[in-house]
Amino acid sequence: MPFWNLNTLQLEEFRPGITSKAVIGNDLIMVCMQIEGGKEDMGHEHPFDQCGMVIEGQIEMVVGADRRILNVNECYFIPAGEHHSWKTFDKSVTLLDISLKQS
Amino acid sequence: MPFWNLNTLQLEEFRPGITSKAVIGNDLIMVCMQIEGGKEDMGHEHPFDQCGMVIEGQIEMVVGADRRILNVNECYFIPAGEHHSWKTFDKSVTLLDISLKQS
Repeated sequence: MPFWNLNTLQLEEFRPGITSKAVIGNDLIMVCMQIEGGKEDMGHEHPFDQCGMVIEGQIEMVVGADRRILNVNECYFIPAGEHHSWKTFDKSVTLLDISLKQS
Repeated sequence: MPFWNLNTLQLEEFRPGITSKAVIGNDLIMVCMQIEGGKEDMGHEHPFDQCGMVIEGQIEMVVGADRRILNVNECYFIPAGEHHSWKTFDKSVTLLDISLKQS
Protein backbone atom coordinates (compact mmCIF):
# COMPACT_ATOMS: atom_id res chain seq x y z
CA MET A 1 0.00 0.00 0.00
CA PRO A 2 1.70 3.18 -1.15
CA PHE A 3 -0.31 5.57 1.07
CA TRP A 4 -0.45 6.28 4.82
CA ASN A 5 -2.66 8.54 6.86
CA LEU A 6 -0.51 9.45 9.86
CA ASN A 7 -3.60 10.38 11.87
CA THR A 8 -4.83 6.79 11.85
CA LEU A 9 -1.69 4.72 11.19
CA GLN A 10 -1.25 1.86 13.66
CA LEU A 11 2.27 1.77 15.08
CA GLU A 12 3.89 -1.34 16.54
CA GLU A 13 6.38 -1.95 19.35
CA PHE A 14 9.86 -1.40 17.99
CA ARG A 15 12.09 -0.85 21.02
CA PRO A 16 11.25 0.05 24.61
CA GLY A 17 9.61 3.47 24.45
CA ILE A 18 9.44 3.53 20.65
CA THR A 19 6.61 2.36 18.40
CA SER A 20 6.90 2.51 14.64
CA LYS A 21 5.66 1.47 11.23
CA ALA A 22 7.98 1.20 8.23
CA VAL A 23 7.93 0.83 4.48
CA ILE A 24 11.12 -0.72 3.14
CA GLY A 25 11.69 -0.17 -0.56
CA ASN A 26 14.60 -0.87 -2.85
CA ASP A 27 16.47 2.26 -1.81
CA LEU A 28 14.61 4.00 0.99
CA ILE A 29 13.16 3.18 4.39
CA MET A 30 10.25 5.41 5.40
CA VAL A 31 9.33 5.15 9.06
CA CYS A 32 6.67 6.77 11.19
CA MET A 33 7.87 6.53 14.78
CA GLN A 34 6.59 7.67 18.11
CA ILE A 35 9.14 8.11 20.89
CA GLU A 36 8.01 8.47 24.50
CA GLY A 37 8.93 11.47 26.59
CA GLY A 38 12.11 11.25 28.64
CA LYS A 39 14.09 9.22 26.09
CA GLU A 40 17.54 9.96 24.79
CA ASP A 41 20.02 8.73 22.20
CA MET A 42 23.47 9.76 23.36
CA GLY A 43 24.79 9.96 19.83
CA HIS A 44 25.94 7.85 16.92
CA GLU A 45 26.72 8.14 13.24
CA HIS A 46 26.21 6.04 10.13
CA PRO A 47 27.54 6.20 6.58
CA PHE A 48 24.26 7.22 4.95
CA ASP A 49 21.94 10.24 4.93
CA GLN A 50 18.86 10.36 7.15
CA CYS A 51 16.13 13.00 7.22
CA GLY A 52 12.62 13.64 8.39
CA MET A 53 10.21 15.91 10.17
CA VAL A 54 8.23 16.29 13.37
CA ILE A 55 4.56 15.32 12.99
CA GLU A 56 3.55 15.89 16.61
CA GLY A 57 5.32 16.89 19.82
CA GLN A 58 8.87 18.06 20.31
CA ILE A 59 12.39 16.66 20.14
CA GLU A 60 15.85 18.10 20.61
CA MET A 61 18.34 17.08 17.95
CA VAL A 62 22.04 17.67 17.66
CA VAL A 63 23.53 17.20 14.20
CA GLY A 64 27.25 17.87 14.11
CA ALA A 65 27.69 21.29 15.76
CA ASP A 66 24.02 22.29 15.38
CA ARG A 67 21.56 21.87 18.23
CA ARG A 68 17.84 22.60 17.86
CA ILE A 69 14.52 21.91 19.50
CA LEU A 70 12.22 20.80 16.70
CA ASN A 71 8.46 21.20 16.77
CA VAL A 72 5.69 20.27 14.32
CA ASN A 73 6.59 21.09 10.71
CA GLU A 74 10.30 21.26 11.44
CA CYS A 75 12.66 19.05 9.46
CA TYR A 76 16.13 17.62 9.91
CA PHE A 77 18.73 16.38 7.47
CA ILE A 78 21.59 14.30 8.87
CA PRO A 79 24.41 14.03 6.32
CA ALA A 80 26.15 10.68 5.93
CA GLY A 81 28.82 10.26 8.61
CA GLU A 82 27.62 13.18 10.75
CA HIS A 83 27.43 12.53 14.48
CA HIS A 84 23.90 13.08 15.80
CA SER A 85 21.89 12.62 18.95
CA TRP A 86 18.38 13.40 20.24
CA LYS A 87 16.28 13.60 23.34
CA THR A 88 12.59 13.96 24.05
CA PHE A 89 11.08 16.09 26.81
CA ASP A 90 7.98 15.50 28.93
CA LYS A 91 5.72 14.39 26.05
CA SER A 92 6.12 11.93 23.21
CA VAL A 93 7.20 12.96 19.72
CA THR A 94 6.04 11.53 16.41
CA LEU A 95 8.44 11.67 13.46
CA LEU A 96 8.36 10.77 9.80
CA ASP A 97 11.91 9.57 9.15
CA ILE A 98 13.54 8.53 5.89
CA SER A 99 16.92 6.92 5.45
CA LEU A 100 18.87 5.07 2.81
CA LYS A 101 18.35 1.33 2.91
CA GLN A 102 21.61 -0.44 3.55
CA SER A 103 22.38 -3.12 0.97
CA MET B 1 22.13 23.92 7.91
CA PRO B 2 20.58 20.62 8.96
CA PHE B 3 17.22 22.05 10.12
CA TRP B 4 14.20 23.60 8.36
CA ASN B 5 11.05 25.17 9.69
CA LEU B 6 8.49 24.57 6.95
CA ASN B 7 6.32 27.40 8.26
CA THR B 8 8.97 29.97 7.38
CA LEU B 9 11.10 28.25 4.71
CA GLN B 10 11.65 30.41 1.63
CA LEU B 11 10.95 28.50 -1.57
CA GLU B 12 12.38 29.42 -4.94
CA GLU B 13 11.11 29.15 -8.52
CA PHE B 14 11.76 25.64 -9.79
CA ARG B 15 9.45 25.14 -12.76
CA PRO B 16 6.37 27.07 -13.88
CA GLY B 17 3.84 26.65 -11.08
CA ILE B 18 6.28 24.94 -8.72
CA THR B 19 8.50 26.54 -6.08
CA SER B 20 10.89 24.48 -4.01
CA LYS B 21 13.85 24.27 -1.69
CA ALA B 22 16.16 21.25 -1.61
CA VAL B 23 18.91 19.69 0.46
CA ILE B 24 21.10 17.38 -1.59
CA GLY B 25 23.15 14.94 0.45
CA ASN B 26 25.34 11.98 -0.45
CA ASP B 27 22.38 9.64 -0.83
CA LEU B 28 19.14 11.55 -0.40
CA ILE B 29 17.44 14.62 -1.83
CA MET B 30 14.96 16.25 0.56
CA VAL B 31 12.69 18.80 -1.10
CA CYS B 32 9.96 21.04 0.18
CA MET B 33 7.83 21.97 -2.82
CA GLN B 34 4.71 23.97 -3.40
CA ILE B 35 2.67 23.16 -6.49
CA GLU B 36 -0.02 25.55 -7.69
CA GLY B 37 -3.63 24.45 -8.11
CA GLY B 38 -4.65 23.15 -11.51
CA LYS B 39 -1.36 21.39 -12.27
CA GLU B 40 -0.90 17.85 -13.44
CA ASP B 41 1.84 15.33 -14.13
CA MET B 42 0.48 12.82 -16.60
CA GLY B 43 2.71 10.07 -15.32
CA HIS B 44 6.27 8.81 -15.36
CA GLU B 45 8.52 6.34 -13.58
CA HIS B 46 12.13 6.22 -12.42
CA PRO B 47 14.41 3.47 -11.16
CA PHE B 48 14.56 4.69 -7.55
CA ASP B 49 12.20 5.03 -4.59
CA GLN B 50 10.50 8.32 -3.79
CA CYS B 51 8.35 9.20 -0.80
CA GLY B 52 6.94 12.10 1.12
CA MET B 53 3.94 13.68 2.75
CA VAL B 54 1.45 16.51 2.37
CA ILE B 55 2.25 19.53 4.55
CA GLU B 56 -0.60 21.74 3.37
CA GLY B 57 -3.37 21.46 0.78
CA GLN B 58 -4.43 18.49 -1.27
CA ILE B 59 -3.10 16.40 -4.16
CA GLU B 60 -4.33 13.36 -6.03
CA MET B 61 -1.69 10.72 -6.59
CA VAL B 62 -1.76 7.54 -8.59
CA VAL B 63 0.94 5.00 -7.76
CA GLY B 64 0.67 1.88 -9.84
CA ALA B 65 -2.95 0.74 -9.49
CA ASP B 66 -3.63 2.84 -6.37
CA ARG B 67 -5.31 6.25 -6.62
CA ARG B 68 -5.79 8.50 -3.62
CA ILE B 69 -6.51 12.09 -2.71
CA LEU B 70 -3.94 13.00 -0.08
CA ASN B 71 -4.47 15.68 2.55
CA VAL B 72 -2.28 17.03 5.36
CA ASN B 73 -0.49 14.26 7.27
CA GLU B 74 -0.91 11.76 4.48
CA CYS B 75 2.16 10.06 3.04
CA TYR B 76 3.11 8.32 -0.17
CA PHE B 77 5.76 5.77 -1.05
CA ILE B 78 6.54 5.28 -4.73
CA PRO B 79 8.57 2.09 -5.24
CA ALA B 80 11.42 2.14 -7.75
CA GLY B 81 10.09 1.60 -11.26
CA GLU B 82 6.43 2.17 -10.34
CA HIS B 83 4.44 4.38 -12.71
CA HIS B 84 3.00 7.39 -10.89
CA SER B 85 1.17 10.60 -11.63
CA TRP B 86 -0.43 13.46 -9.70
CA LYS B 87 -2.73 16.42 -10.04
CA THR B 88 -3.64 19.36 -7.86
CA PHE B 89 -7.12 20.82 -7.46
CA ASP B 90 -8.21 24.42 -6.93
CA LYS B 91 -5.59 25.27 -4.29
CA SER B 92 -1.85 24.76 -4.04
CA VAL B 93 -0.29 21.82 -2.23
CA THR B 94 2.91 21.78 -0.21
CA LEU B 95 4.86 18.53 0.00
CA LEU B 96 7.95 17.27 1.75
CA ASP B 97 9.45 14.86 -0.77
CA ILE B 98 12.46 12.57 -0.42
CA SER B 99 14.11 10.58 -3.16
CA LEU B 100 17.33 8.73 -3.78
CA LYS B 101 20.06 10.89 -5.26
CA GLN B 102 21.13 9.55 -8.61
CA SER B 103 24.87 8.97 -8.87
